Amino acid sequence: MRPFTRTIPVDEARAIIDSTIQPIARTARIPLATALGRVLARDITAEADVPPFARASMDGYAVRAGNTTGATKASPRGLDCIGQVFTGDAPARGIGHGECLEIATGAPMPDGADAVVMVEETFRDGRAVQIFSAVIPQQNVGKRGADIHAGQTVLSNGDTLNPSRIGAAAALGIDEVVVYDLPRVTILSTGNEIVEPGRPLGPGQIYDINRFTLSALVSDNGGIPVPRRTARDTIEDLERAIDESRHDDLMLFSGGSSVGERDLILDVLQKRGETLFHGLAVKPGKPTAFGRVGVTPFFGLPGYPTSCLSNAYILVAPALRKMAHLASRLHRTMVLPLGQRVVSTIGRHQFFTVRLADGLAMPAFKGSGDITSMSQADGYIEIPVDVASVDAGTPVEVTLFI
Amino acid sequence: MRPFTRTIPVDEARAIIDSTIQPIARTARIPLATALGRVLARDITAEADVPPFARASMDGYAVRAGNTTGATKASPRGLDCIGQVFTGDAPARGIGHGECLEIATGAPMPDGADAVVMVEETFRDGRAVQIFSAVIPQQNVGKRGADIHAGQTVLSNGDTLNPSRIGAAAALGIDEVVVYDLPRVTILSTGNEIVEPGRPLGPGQIYDINRFTLSALVSDNGGIPVPRRTARDTIEDLERAIDESRHDDLMLFSGGSSVGERDLILDVLQKRGETLFHGLAVKPGKPTAFGRVGVTPFFGLPGYPTSCLSNAYILVAPALRKMAHLASRLHRTMVLPLGQRVVSTIGRHQFFTVRLADGLAMPAFKGSGDITSMSQADGYIEIPVDVASVDAGTPVEVTLFI
Repeated sequence: MRPFTRTIPVDEARAIIDSTIQPIARTARIPLATALGRVLARDITAEADVPPFARASMDGYAVRAGNTTGATKASPRGLDCIGQVFTGDAPARGIGHGECLEIATGAPMPDGADAVVMVEETFRDGRAVQIFSAVIPQQNVGKRGADIHAGQTVLSNGDTLNPSRIGAAAALGIDEVVVYDLPRVTILSTGNEIVEPGRPLGPGQIYDINRFTLSALVSDNGGIPVPRRTARDTIEDLERAIDESRHDDLMLFSGGSSVGERDLILDVLQKRGETLFHGLAVKPGKPTAFGRVGVTPFFGLPGYPTSCLSNAYILVAPALRKMAHLASRLHRTMVLPLGQRVVSTIGRHQFFTVRLADGLAMPAFKGSGDITSMSQADGYIEIPVDVASVDAGTPVEVTLFI
Repeated sequence: MRPFTRTIPVDEARAIIDSTIQPIARTARIPLATALGRVLARDITAEADVPPFARASMDGYAVRAGNTTGATKASPRGLDCIGQVFTGDAPARGIGHGECLEIATGAPMPDGADAVVMVEETFRDGRAVQIFSAVIPQQNVGKRGADIHAGQTVLSNGDTLNPSRIGAAAALGIDEVVVYDLPRVTILSTGNEIVEPGRPLGPGQIYDINRFTLSALVSDNGGIPVPRRTARDTIEDLERAIDESRHDDLMLFSGGSSVGERDLILDVLQKRGETLFHGLAVKPGKPTAFGRVGVTPFFGLPGYPTSCLSNAYILVAPALRKMAHLASRLHRTMVLPLGQRVVSTIGRHQFFTVRLADGLAMPAFKGSGDITSMSQADGYIEIPVDVASVDAGTPVEVTLFI
């Protein structure tokens, strides 16, 4: 066995990871209809005005504003309705003095008209329309180019496409967008004891948990999980697994990163590439390594499911989001008073799961192998390396799991 | 034209929607590996203990705790190492007094051993192992069933599957889960002026935006968007569209819900089903309707893109989440001081987009047809019907777009 002679602080680990991980440069052209959550790799500039014509922004009558001056319910102005303009119509004939055209919201303004009177402010009898309320020029009219003018940069390289940004692209008539590729992430569980869910367990065997938790976390942070066949604890099997994975953008190994004799994965990674750290001053999750094989960064994560997943949250998710050009998830954090005192370990950055109850963050942590308590938690808090305990009532920042 | 004679308050509309929308009862059995974000439709109960055997929680030596009493660096206890236990091994031969077995994290505890001494607290020379630190019984041992005991309910009907919950299912050896079906949501833009992005615009025509924004919002709130071919403003076309859609779980129509003569969609919906409200005291978004055709609820949303999308955020998303058994998105809200005074309209519930800047919610609203300003906003605030203005510095609740 090879004991950990040194562990590095989490902040130092984060700095090493950050200087190693690069955002993906590859791009793909995809249909706009499938682009939710993707990150634009080009600015999008308008080639024409939106809307492409002045239009009514209310249902009513297109008028000359001057013809409505002084109109009230008691003293209406009378106009002659010479026809209708529907949405989708080519611009209709214009109106003259004393005339109006019935117009639908979104329909192009006819020549000669400069305002729309809402239908609610009118009464009609045949061609005779009574106007109960004066309008000023441009009232209830959407100007040509009011939303977007030709030449304007509407969306920028690096914007994550949400519903309204997808709408802005559609407004320009764009049906395909160029986005950054999603990082492909190898996920490999190692260990002779690991059995696929759905099969029977032999003596000394346990089910593979990490492949599932890591795949889910990768999907949830902008990556494509590429789960590999579980590798046995042999040099040959591990080398084969690494060779299969080295064209992916990131490799996540779990198990075999501790100090046991069969923890061969780090030997193999070291032989094929470079280990940048091994052994982290964090609890749970000390047996964690990071490095690269060729240009592909790897994380060697602990085999214990919650240690593996907690380090995936605090280290892998931010790295992957950087790779995927995604912003950090500020909106998944909230500050709440701690519901109960927690005791930490000086010299170790600590990860504690919490449940949200009655506006408090209640500790929910049981043990580092315990996936159930984690599955019943709502999120986690981190206790820095130099803090020995946090009292009940102290505001803590909770990162939510969903 | 048929003016709005009455608009109903947003809270009343929400109550009508809530009493009409029912959570989906249909379920599907899907692979665990694809279950991220899905909602369990069954409790999951453990059939066996997890872990299924007592195991080492550290790399080191399996010992009898009593054999280490009083051990220190200065005064170590010597033990005879009779072999090794790896993870995945069947339980090895037991140990007797004065003996130990080298053991890897996760490997089954041998008979006769009740504790593990960390490798860092030992020195080995051949079979002779020196122990530098005493352990107590069960120290560094994960008990059988410590995480989950047979018969325990590990996950519950209604739980949304996040990475740790997927891990808890995997821990039980489960490779398929029964989840609620995703609601299928018809999305139909109506109007003669609407053109598919990617095609040229004719006079009076604009691109279809709502199909894209609504599809994205549906995907983002647990539904499957089913975009339909744009319907023209004819009775026949609209009837055909409704007939095609009535086996979906929810129908979203945009356009044609105002008071213009060609706004036929509501006539057709009324003929085929029942309109529960039409005309909402909200700005933007007054021309909004809700009802049902057979058992399928529908929303008739405004054609104007931001009016359509803002009502989709405040009314459709919560309805869809209820249908999909998803919790409301508390984690997408944050309370921030308003950066600039906003003026609202008494008698109208108002939707304002905001940008987050320097810890403030800055108003970003331009006009109801303006998808660009919405695409540059980070979220929105709602101003209740009885509030005329909100001063700078007032804390407001921002719902984030992503």
